[in-house]
Amino acid sequence: MPLVCFQPGGIVAEVPEGTLIREAAQLVGILDLELPCGGEGVCGLCKVEVDGQNTPILACQTKVTSDIVVRLPDRQQGALFVGDSHLLIDPGLLPDAGHLTPLYRRLRLNVPPASVEEHYSDWTRLVREMRRSNGALPVTCDLPVLRRLSASVRAANGKITVSVEESVSELRIRDVQSGHTSAHALGLAVDIGTTTVAAQLVDLDDGALLATQTSYNLQLRRGADIISRIDYARDGERLEELRSLVLETINGLIGQLAKSLLIEPQDIGGAFLAGNTTMIHLLLGLPPGYIREAPYVPTVNFVPELRAQEVGLKIDPQALVACAPGVGSYVGGDITAGLLCTDLPTNNQDVFLFMDIGTNGEIVIGNADWMVGCACSAGPAFEGSGIKCGMRAAEGAVERVAIGDDRESVKCSVIGGGKPAGICGSGLISLLGELFRQDVVDRSGRFFESPGSGRIVQYEGRRAFRLAGGEQTRDGKDLLITEADLENLIRTKAAIYAACSLVLENVGLTWDSITRVYIAGGFGRYIRIADAVFIGMLPDLPLDRFRYLGNSSLTGAYIALLSREHRQRMAEIAARITYVDLSSNPGYMDSYIKALFLPHTDLEQFPTVAETLKSRRREIS
Amino acid sequence: MPLVCFQPGGIVAEVPEGTLIREAAQLVGILDLELPCGGEGVCGLCKVEVDGQNTPILACQTKVTSDIVVRLPDRQQGALFVGDSHLLIDPGLLPDAGHLTPLYRRLRLNVPPASVEEHYSDWTRLVREMRRSNGALPVTCDLPVLRRLSASVRAANGKITVSVEESVSELRIRDVQSGHTSAHALGLAVDIGTTTVAAQLVDLDDGALLATQTSYNLQLRRGADIISRIDYARDGERLEELRSLVLETINGLIGQLAKSLLIEPQDIGGAFLAGNTTMIHLLLGLPPGYIREAPYVPTVNFVPELRAQEVGLKIDPQALVACAPGVGSYVGGDITAGLLCTDLPTNNQDVFLFMDIGTNGEIVIGNADWMVGCACSAGPAFEGSGIKCGMRAAEGAVERVAIGDDRESVKCSVIGGGKPAGICGSGLISLLGELFRQDVVDRSGRFFESPGSGRIVQYEGRRAFRLAGGEQTRDGKDLLITEADLENLIRTKAAIYAACSLVLENVGLTWDSITRVYIAGGFGRYIRIADAVFIGMLPDLPLDRFRYLGNSSLTGAYIALLSREHRQRMAEIAARITYVDLSSNPGYMDSYIKALFLPHTDLEQFPTVAETLKSRRREIS
Repeated sequence: MPLVCFQPGGIVAEVPEGTLIREAAQLVGILDLELPCGGEGVCGLCKVEVDGQNTPILACQTKVTSDIVVRLPDRQQGALFVGDSHLLIDPGLLPDAGHLTPLYRRLRLNVPPASVEEHYSDWTRLVREMRRSNGALPVTCDLPVLRRLSASVRAANGKITVSVEESVSELRIRDVQSGHTSAHALGLAVDIGTTTVAAQLVDLDDGALLATQTSYNLQLRRGADIISRIDYARDGERLEELRSLVLETINGLIGQLAKSLLIEPQDIGGAFLAGNTTMIHLLLGLPPGYIREAPYVPTVNFVPELRAQEVGLKIDPQALVACAPGVGSYVGGDITAGLLCTDLPTNNQDVFLFMDIGTNGEIVIGNADWMVGCACSAGPAFEGSGIKCGMRAAEGAVERVAIGDDRESVKCSVIGGGKPAGICGSGLISLLGELFRQDVVDRSGRFFESPGSGRIVQYEGRRAFRLAGGEQTRDGKDLLITEADLENLIRTKAAIYAACSLVLENVGLTWDSITRVYIAGGFGRYIRIADAVFIGMLPDLPLDRFRYLGNSSLTGAYIALLSREHRQRMAEIAARITYVDLSSNPGYMDSYIKALFLPHTDLEQFPTVAETLKSRRREIS
Repeated sequence: MPLVCFQPGGIVAEVPEGTLIREAAQLVGILDLELPCGGEGVCGLCKVEVDGQNTPILACQTKVTSDIVVRLPDRQQGALFVGDSHLLIDPGLLPDAGHLTPLYRRLRLNVPPASVEEHYSDWTRLVREMRRSNGALPVTCDLPVLRRLSASVRAANGKITVSVEESVSELRIRDVQSGHTSAHALGLAVDIGTTTVAAQLVDLDDGALLATQTSYNLQLRRGADIISRIDYARDGERLEELRSLVLETINGLIGQLAKSLLIEPQDIGGAFLAGNTTMIHLLLGLPPGYIREAPYVPTVNFVPELRAQEVGLKIDPQALVACAPGVGSYVGGDITAGLLCTDLPTNNQDVFLFMDIGTNGEIVIGNADWMVGCACSAGPAFEGSGIKCGMRAAEGAVERVAIGDDRESVKCSVIGGGKPAGICGSGLISLLGELFRQDVVDRSGRFFESPGSGRIVQYEGRRAFRLAGGEQTRDGKDLLITEADLENLIRTKAAIYAACSLVLENVGLTWDSITRVYIAGGFGRYIRIADAVFIGMLPDLPLDRFRYLGNSSLTGAYIALLSREHRQRMAEIAARITYVDLSSNPGYMDSYIKALFLPHTDLEQFPTVAETLKSRRREIS
């Protein structure tokens, strides 16, 4: 099958010959190619450039017949920033840009003058104008706004611009200026992961995503996973240390975002945060100890709205900081935010499975009537941490691997193109699948004694796969994937699969009942579902039942930042999910051990993988 | 008719022979004589002492047959503090002490432990307990509360005490402590008058009034009335000066209140303020200029709730500060607060008249369907300012005068007993009535050439009445009431009567339609209605239609501090009143000039006064 490489960004799609370019784009989550004519080839708005051709062609009319590189026009380039996961979800789930109700907004109003007949106060006339389009919440303000109000209202014949925050209980005017100012209101969406933190700067006037930055959570210095962080934070000083570390991480991202857009961090007027329960506790300086002591309750799931100043975020000190509501100790706001990126079923026949796979794996299964949520400890492998050459899905990360039948030739797709610097989650999944498919590793993930390939090398007493030699990498060192890395990866995928199996069993369902599987996580920009099924991480279901959402926690935070309706919906979702504790379930360990093989001890659960393996063996023999 | 003098305080009631002592007490507004047996003489709880008798007697059984001095037991003594106006209103209008919903409260809760089955977070379990008795408002808190929550909940088996403020939009937990603390929450009620400021310290757990303090508004240095203050505040520096002066006044009262009860001002957790529109603007530093420029609109009538810190009140910096909502530029929150002290009519036949007479006179007339409000400039005479020997209604103030038929013998009732230090509003009204009744002054308030009394003396080229000689006063100087004082007083009463007449005319009613007249103001603790009718300040209606409310602005602030329902009712009242501007009414000056006589140019409007005068003349001739 030919490969289509979309630039900039180097996202690769492998598609059957004859696929339209626009279909290939959709397959890899580029959803905003403009198709106002419905793909009839009439409007000409989906024009793209293809390397080696002189004139742009129409993505809706041109079929892929061989490997090509497609260059998207400027507008679509924005779609390819790392972290731009909101392009992976159904655009219908995003708030309507024409009717945003963000956490913080700038309203340009025309306050009518008072008259002898209608001698309403300046404040009353202002509030009436606000009410026209901003709902019925009580309106309040700080004193400096009142002090400037009479002059501001009169300076430009009633034209004023007010900066307004919307909490769950009130609209608060934080600033008033005369005239209609052009500066847009800015907001911040943050996903605080155990391993990776991602932040987006958002234009709150039109919902435009202005920039995304991600970085490792500096708390990694004090433990790779949630449990080790909780243990570390057992006294006040250490809790404060962890709080400072994650704040340093987020404030660093804010600084980068501000710098890239030439704004001051203080111009950011509101923030929406999503993170797992422990991350939110550590960020807020709440002692997390009770999260891991029976009966396992956190201080808070529905965090009250706070101010940037008290949280320590270096944006406008008075900015409202809202957190996505969590469900329980190990199913946090990152999950409820992520569920905003899904079409929840409206009937009982449709059962969905939502999996968010980061350092922890969190799973929600449900239908229109019920939702059950649980968690399993996955480990940070998919986010590049704990893997020798692992890295986040950033420029230079290998995100796709193809190994030739000779087990020697290797093709790597690198984010941003050029030489690789490391490998990210989707790259690891792809690599493990290829190693297994090409019989480089056995079903337990160990390299065969005699793989017949010069790529197998010794590393610290064990074997490793040399994905790229030093001459091909950015730092001049071999890009090695060790057997320990593969074990790490297999433990992770086993934990996830075992958790899903057990929840299904508990609610009396089988895999077949699942009509939709949503996959979220920080693997990279694009996880090939077939790869994940092949290694037994995802169930062997028809591929059209899967949707890859990318970092849905971040996308959910972005959506919630922009829309009151979605903030309310998220709270309803959090309240509806029943939390179950797998760790106390005696069947879990059994289920986990069975999943430690590739794809699984029980090959019957993976019929298409078994079929591929069988035909492969036939070819070889 | 015999006189009953209640001590301590020296409140005098003139009652028909045979009146029960308890009826006399009710007449002058002492409403809390305990009568659990309904006045049957059974319970013995209404025992009082009568000077000259050896044993206490029952107030409900003893008739007044001659002048007596009644000494109230300790509990009733509290009722006689200056400013204790809430004892003058129908007790049924006060919030139920068992179900208070104050602006700030202390809740002693038992938070149940979490269990494996019910693993709600600490916050959720706390909020559920709060909800049982505190309504459905969203609950929020500051971050330090969350940080201490998990430890506080566990330290005393779920027993915690939370300090909670209730704004119009949310309940905010400001503090959490483990165990059930005994310290009560404290609040502040303030009436900010143009001349006088009064503050009360209130126990928010049981509604008890702990102490009251009043003082002149230090802004008096910069103008006696609202208009001169607005003019003075025309630039930012002077506005800031006026703001500082009223803050200094209020903070001084807070300091005295705190000292008298041995508490720290920072222990006061919430404040409710009532004041006229200009006073509130000056306190908050809002430029007041537009109040007196057409079309006469203030910056704000419904002031958003603020924090003590931003306002500058020296109580808990985070304390919520709420202001009674105003109606317009010259009908402020003092009036809506005052209306909380009245039984507003529930049908259209009952028309009420509410008059608040301070430095400004404000009037509201209405029935169940409509309310009209307006203002007239009265001047500070009733509050003792602008009067040579005037003083606030405090210890040492003459509050009642009787002049003998010889025009020489004078009896003064002095607040707190002893020698007089000056004269307050009710004393002035009483004095003017007596001077007029005894033909010491003519109908324009001028002393007759030959009054035949040694009490008429010369003072600065004009005549004056020597109420007390230097040997009888505290400072050893004559207590003089000058002709200029009397003119001042007559202008004031004329402005009030003229305003009422005009509003009645505008709504097509006559005086007879008024079924209830509420009189509020800073005259003193007790204004004798008959005196005020005699000088033409109040209409000549049957005396049983009048109710004297005292400082109803302060009482209303006290009520609102304690009760959500009353805060809401006050806002509804403010929204319902239609504001009319008398100053632009061409009939006002005409009406005013007619009222500059004693009791009025048109004696037909005062039939009982005319009758008294006629019979008096008959006696003399």
